[in-house]
This record gives sequence, C-alpha cells and structure tokens, in this order.
Amino acid sequence: MLSIPDLIRKKRDGGQLTDEEISFIIQSVTTNRMQDCQIGAMLMAIWQRGMVAAEIQTLTREMMVSGEVMRWPDEWKRLVVDKHSTGGVGDKVSLVLAPALAACGCKVPMISGRGLAHTGGTLDKLESIPGFNVQQSAEQIQSILASVGCCIVGQTEMLVPADRVLYALRDATSTVDSLPLITGSIISKKGAESLSALVLDVKFGRAALYKDLESAKQLAQLLMDAGNSLGIQTAAVLSHMDGTIGRSVGNSLEVIESLETLKGNGPDDLMELVTTLGGMLLLMTDLALGLPEGKKQIYDAVIGGAALSKFEAMMKAQGVANETTRKLCSAHTDYYSILRKSEHQLELEALADGVVLDVNGLVLAQVLHKLGAGRTKAGEAVNYSVGAELLVSLGQRVQKGSSWLRLHYEDRAPSPDQINLLQKALTVGKDKREAGDRDTLVAEVLLPH
Amino acid sequence: MLSIPDLIRKKRDGGQLTDEEISFIIQSVTTNRMQDCQIGAMLMAIWQRGMVAAEIQTLTREMMVSGEVMRWPDEWKRLVVDKHSTGGVGDKVSLVLAPALAACGCKVPMISGRGLAHTGGTLDKLESIPGFNVQQSAEQIQSILASVGCCIVGQTEMLVPADRVLYALRDATSTVDSLPLITGSIISKKGAESLSALVLDVKFGRAALYKDLESAKQLAQLLMDAGNSLGIQTAAVLSHMDGTIGRSVGNSLEVIESLETLKGNGPDDLMELVTTLGGMLLLMTDLALGLPEGKKQIYDAVIGGAALSKFEAMMKAQGVANETTRKLCSAHTDYYSILRKSEHQLELEALADGVVLDVNGLVLAQVLHKLGAGRTKAGEAVNYSVGAELLVSLGQRVQKGSSWLRLHYEDRAPSPDQINLLQKALTVGKDKREAGDRDTLVAEVLLPH
Repeated sequence: MLSIPDLIRKKRDGGQLTDEEISFIIQSVTTNRMQDCQIGAMLMAIWQRGMVAAEIQTLTREMMVSGEVMRWPDEWKRLVVDKHSTGGVGDKVSLVLAPALAACGCKVPMISGRGLAHTGGTLDKLESIPGFNVQQSAEQIQSILASVGCCIVGQTEMLVPADRVLYALRDATSTVDSLPLITGSIISKKGAESLSALVLDVKFGRAALYKDLESAKQLAQLLMDAGNSLGIQTAAVLSHMDGTIGRSVGNSLEVIESLETLKGNGPDDLMELVTTLGGMLLLMTDLALGLPEGKKQIYDAVIGGAALSKFEAMMKAQGVANETTRKLCSAHTDYYSILRKSEHQLELEALADGVVLDVNGLVLAQVLHKLGAGRTKAGEAVNYSVGAELLVSLGQRVQKGSSWLRLHYEDRAPSPDQINLLQKALTVGKDKREAGDRDTLVAEVLLPH
Repeated sequence: MLSIPDLIRKKRDGGQLTDEEISFIIQSVTTNRMQDCQIGAMLMAIWQRGMVAAEIQTLTREMMVSGEVMRWPDEWKRLVVDKHSTGGVGDKVSLVLAPALAACGCKVPMISGRGLAHTGGTLDKLESIPGFNVQQSAEQIQSILASVGCCIVGQTEMLVPADRVLYALRDATSTVDSLPLITGSIISKKGAESLSALVLDVKFGRAALYKDLESAKQLAQLLMDAGNSLGIQTAAVLSHMDGTIGRSVGNSLEVIESLETLKGNGPDDLMELVTTLGGMLLLMTDLALGLPEGKKQIYDAVIGGAALSKFEAMMKAQGVANETTRKLCSAHTDYYSILRKSEHQLELEALADGVVLDVNGLVLAQVLHKLGAGRTKAGEAVNYSVGAELLVSLGQRVQKGSSWLRLHYEDRAPSPDQINLLQKALTVGKDKREAGDRDTLVAEVLLPH
C-alpha cells in the first residue's frame, strides 16, 4: 500500500518516482485524498528536485487520464491539430491561425486560457466581441469542428481535473516555474484533446518566462518529448519575445489587428509566426509535403480571405450575431461600432530624432496591466478597451515630437510615473545597425524525428 | 504588504527570511490565514534550504509568543527548570528526574509528549497509573509546583498554537527531520514555560533520530543557541542510544522500573543519565557549585527516598488515589495489584553460550510497537501492559537455553518472524572486549558559556 508521506519523502530526497507512484499521486489529487498541505509539499519537492523524462511523461499521461479524453470521428484521423504558446505580449496568433488551419482542411479544437499577470489571454480577447461564448461542451465542440473546422474555447470541467487542482495550488505555493510541472500542465490538456499534431510556440526574451534561448529550448524539448510520448506529433518553434507581436496590445485592439490580418493587412512578424506554426502543422498532418509549401498554404488562406470566412463562421457558431460578424468581417468597417472604444486616448511623442532601435514589450504590458487590461488574480474582470497601438516599427526613422504610441485607457488614467516608464520603453538611436541583425521572430524550428 | 507566495519563493530560492517575514508567517499560520498548501510548500522549502541561526532563533521566539507564555512568582526566579529528550527506547528519565529535582528545591513544570512510532511517550507511561491526569491548566500547574515542586503534564491548548498546526502538517508532509523545524518546535514550547534553565538529552545511535555523534551535536548546538537566545540557560548532553535505557521497555513496565529506581534499586545507566542531567540543572540554577556536587545531590535525593516522596505527592496532586500511591510507593509492593499485567508472557532463550555484546534497542522497540505498545498515528490508543524486560546486561555471561528477554503481550501475539527478529537483536560473543570500551551512556556534556 503506497503512502503519500513516503512518496513526498522519496521526491524530497531526490528519488525517481515510479509509474505506479505517480499514478497514485495524481489519483489522490483528483479524488481529494491527498491533503492540500501534502500537495504543497510535493509541488515544492518537485520544484527543488526536478523529474527525469520518464517521470514527466508519466505525470503528463496520468494528468491527462484524470478526466475526460475527447474522441473524434475516424475520418478526422491525422487532421486534429492545435497550437500552444508559452505567452507573449500582443500574442494574437491563435485568432488568425485557427481559422487559417481550418481553411486548409484541419480540425482545430483550440482550448485556450485567460490572461494572468502581464500576458494576455486568447479567451479575454475573443470575449471582447459581443456575444462570443467560449464555454462549449464536448458535443458542441465536435459539432463546430464538423461544420466550421475550428473553435476557440475554455477548458471544460471534465477535462484534466488534476491540472485544475494543481494549477491553483502552484500559484499559491510559488511552484509555477518548474519544468516538469509546466510540461505536465500544458501537454496533459493537449493530450485530452486527442490531437494528431501539436505545435508549440516557446518564447524567450525580456517579456517571456525564460530570458534566454537555451532555457526555452530545454522546455521546448521536454514539451516535445512529453507530447510525442502521448502519440501526438509535436513540434516547436523558439521565438523572440522582447517587444510586441504586431503593433497592438490589449483585448479589443488585438481583435481589430487580427481581423485586419485576416483581411490581408497583417504585420510581417505576426504573419511570420502564423505561417511558420501553421506550416509545421500542415507538414505533420501530411496536408503539405514540406514546410515551405505548408507556409504558403497558410499564407494563401490568410491573404485570400478563406481564413476570414472561417473566422466569421466560428464567431457565428460560438454565439455572435450575424449582423455583428458581418460588420466585423466587411472590408471597410468601423470596428468601434461593435467593439468598445476606450473613453480616453493619449499619444506619446518621441523625445528625440532617430531610428527606432527597441520597444520594451514587458514594460508596455506591465503598465497596461495596471491600467486594467489584465488581471492580477484568476476571476478578476478585465477592461477590454484598455490597450496601446504602436505607431512605429523597429528600424523606422522618427522625428522628435512625432507620435510613437497611442495609449487607450478608461477611468484609471496613467500616472506621470507610468508615462515616464512608457517613454523609456522606446529606444531611439542614430543608426539602424545598432539594433542588431535580427529580422525574424522565429529563432529556431524543432520538428519531431 | 508581505505576501505568502513571495516569502515561499524567497525560501525556495535559498534566501534568508527577516524577523518581520518570519513573524508574518507564524502569525499567518496561527490565525489560519496561511493556506495548508502554502504551509506544506514552506515546510518543504525550509527542509530543502535550511535556516541560518538568526532565522531559527526568530522562528523559535515567534512560535513561543503565538500563544500563552507562563508566568511564575518572583521568588521562583532561577529555580524553574525542565529537561527535554530527543526520544529513546526505555527512556523513563523524566519520571525519576522531575521528583529528584523537586526534592533538591527546583520547580519543574515538565510538559511532555506522547509516544509516536518506536519511541515511547512520558505521558503514556504515567497514564498507565490508574487516575493519573496529565491535563492540567496553567493555574493547576502553578498550584502543584507551589505545593509539590514538580508536575508532568500535557501541552495545553493555549501553549504554542503555531507548533500544534506545524507539527501535525510536518508529519503529513515528511518534513519532521529538519533541524530548524525541530529546534523551533522543541525550544518554543520550553520558552513558553518561562524556564530559568533547560537541559537537553540529545541522543545518537541506532535507535535515535541521528545515527552519529556529529549530527546529534549539530542539533544540540542549535537547540542550545535557540534556548539561550530566549534567555534560558540551556545545556545539553549527547548520549548513546543503541540498546535500551534501563532494562524495561513498555509503559507499565517502565513505571515499575522508575518506582524501583526511586526506591534505590535503579540500573546504572538510568542513574547515570538522571544524575548527570539533574546535576547540570542544579549547577545552572546555582543550587550546586559544580557538576559533581549537583550529581551527588540528585543521587542522594533518589537513593535517600526524598525523590520518591515527591513522586508520591505529584501523583496525588495529579489525581491518583491515596491508596494507589501508597501501594505503589511502599517497599515491597505487588505492582500488578495496581497496574495491569499483560495476559501473556514469553521468555526468549539465548541460542548460544557467551558474553552479551549487544542488544538492538531499535528492533526491540519496533516489535513492541507492532504488538501495541506504541501508536502509529496521533490519537491511537496504546496497550500499557505490552512491553519487555531485559533479563541480561551488556557484558554478562549467558548460557545457551537461559532466558534473556521476557516479552509481555496481550491479544496480539508475536509472529514467528517477530520472534526471529527479537532473537537476532541479541548478540552473544566470546569475549567482553569485543563489545568495545563504552562504559557510560553520556558521551559528551555541553554547558552554556
């Protein structure tokens, strides 16, 4: 008979837990037979001592089977795909990628999260669209995938209950940033979606959980190994996260930028991420023969309007009124007739002439968070209209006094200190070459063997 | 504003907690504002990362003031003393030492614990005496100290509530064996007794928490530092714990051996511990000018019958009927007319001729524990009559077939495996010199500067 204190002691002392022991722990968590104090101690022991690959894979599998595992029709075999990002500033990739993949023939049951701290959440962005309902049952998800091909929804109660318990306690016990626990949490949920292929966008840099490429790569490799061990073809990109993705940050503003992208007017960096991640999934599902072909299919779906049609159909299927979707998806729409525009806007002016060398995305996100764009703890409301539009691009020449950022805010006005912080987020220099030679967001692509 | 997750993170990463931070943690524990999962994580972080001396002393002080701190009349200044043992097999020192110290003029508010796992508890031993009541209020304790000079009682609800919470969770989370947590738990309770002087019996060896002298010495030094930092003169002995203390193990049997010791018939090892620990306390309270004089005073109190009179008075004060105390304390008593004798006794015979070189006290205690002498978890009942009498001494010559152990058991009879284990606990050799040259239990005496 296994005993929880014995298992805590084993991990405390750096031992390797067996499959049977990990299974017992996760079942005890799910059925409330493991006391909260014991879960806290075990999480901390795992944080301190880590887990080997075999333990992480078992942890992931046991978490996955702690609840419902989705089942798909046989004819969708190889077609069910999803993407996971470790979280960025202005990261609206999902809103463009899901409909683009659906337009290319994939089935995309995208289960997303809400924003916490400085990172935005896909569900919050979509909920800024009046009527959009992210709560869909397993049956509804299957029906939307059959008719549209993609949906973006919240986690159901039935899915990976062990993760819901552990995630809440990880936050309270300062054990969020543990590679085995991150891996178990992310991949168990993707496993419960019964995916054929999964692509991970693992970010590194100033505004990411991991600051350097090597740490991010270590996480990417663990995630890929865990995904592949569940029989999901799993690939990853390592992408820079120093500034912002696209030029808008904030829920409504990012919906607008996503729609503009789906209308063919997307910024280069966003298009690069969408085509790379999408291309990799098309390659893994055999819908493309190579990565360049996959990227081109995604590019065409976005530029040609097929992805926009899928997005429109997805909005309708998830509760948005026809009149609203029609307006949002028409060529020259006034977005603010549908989405709330903030009460106040403020344009910040460049303090010197020169070339834009850097925009600090972390600072931008942190100030917006304080102004109400994000939440500090789960369950808090967010202010969809709060955000910022970047009016310049890296490498662009600006003049002193010209506007570089448009801040959207509501009743919480930015303080002089916050304005000061934002001004320091812009670095202007003499020569474009000072900014270094990075032209792409994607630093590395890792495909399964 | 301090945040619990931030403080967990700080200790998780090996940081040193400030006085203010430790105070906040202990207050949060006491007032239930720290979640159980957070306490579990913090305990594990402390187990992994340790604490420096300053942190341990603050932890101890904050735990002490989490509840009621006892107050004594001014005229008892320098006289209030106690002893703490880290737990041994057959350790009945308190039953002899408390009345001996009272006979020498000390005030001894001895707050003891119950047995857990293989170690016995002083309270369990005393409760095997019909009528003995270990639950006494602070007022009752003061009254007994005024009239008798010593009492042996359980922890009250008011005393060190933080320790009650932490101790229960340490057990569940496998964080018992952490030097800072052990120190905080032991010394905070002694601090709340407002002692003048404290002596610690820190055991090492096969049947102790620490197997080697050096580890035990490290704990002893931490305990002494923490005690002295609270203004309690704190000394320690390091004593061997490989066999048994005295010749009896088990609750009733140990009461009988204690009474026999108080009647002048005590075994040498028990007398050595009692006189050394008592002598140190008399030295620290200035009731003796040197350790040899202190030991002699204690010896005389035990051998001369003054300690027995105090024990008799203490029993009466704690609820035992006069008729019972009179019988127990008379010269030639039938103890079993008062204490329950086990239904069954079994004598084990030596399997070879030779000299007794070793008796494994841990094995003996573990088997007795399984037969009902101890408890596996707090709150379980124990069987007072279950125990064992050692019929031989180290160095004594035995013959094959002669009895070396008398086992007392009730309805749970020893299995053949258990008998086998017990037989292996006795080591018989050719020559006494094989047993090494240890003649005393006390390996080292540490006095405060």
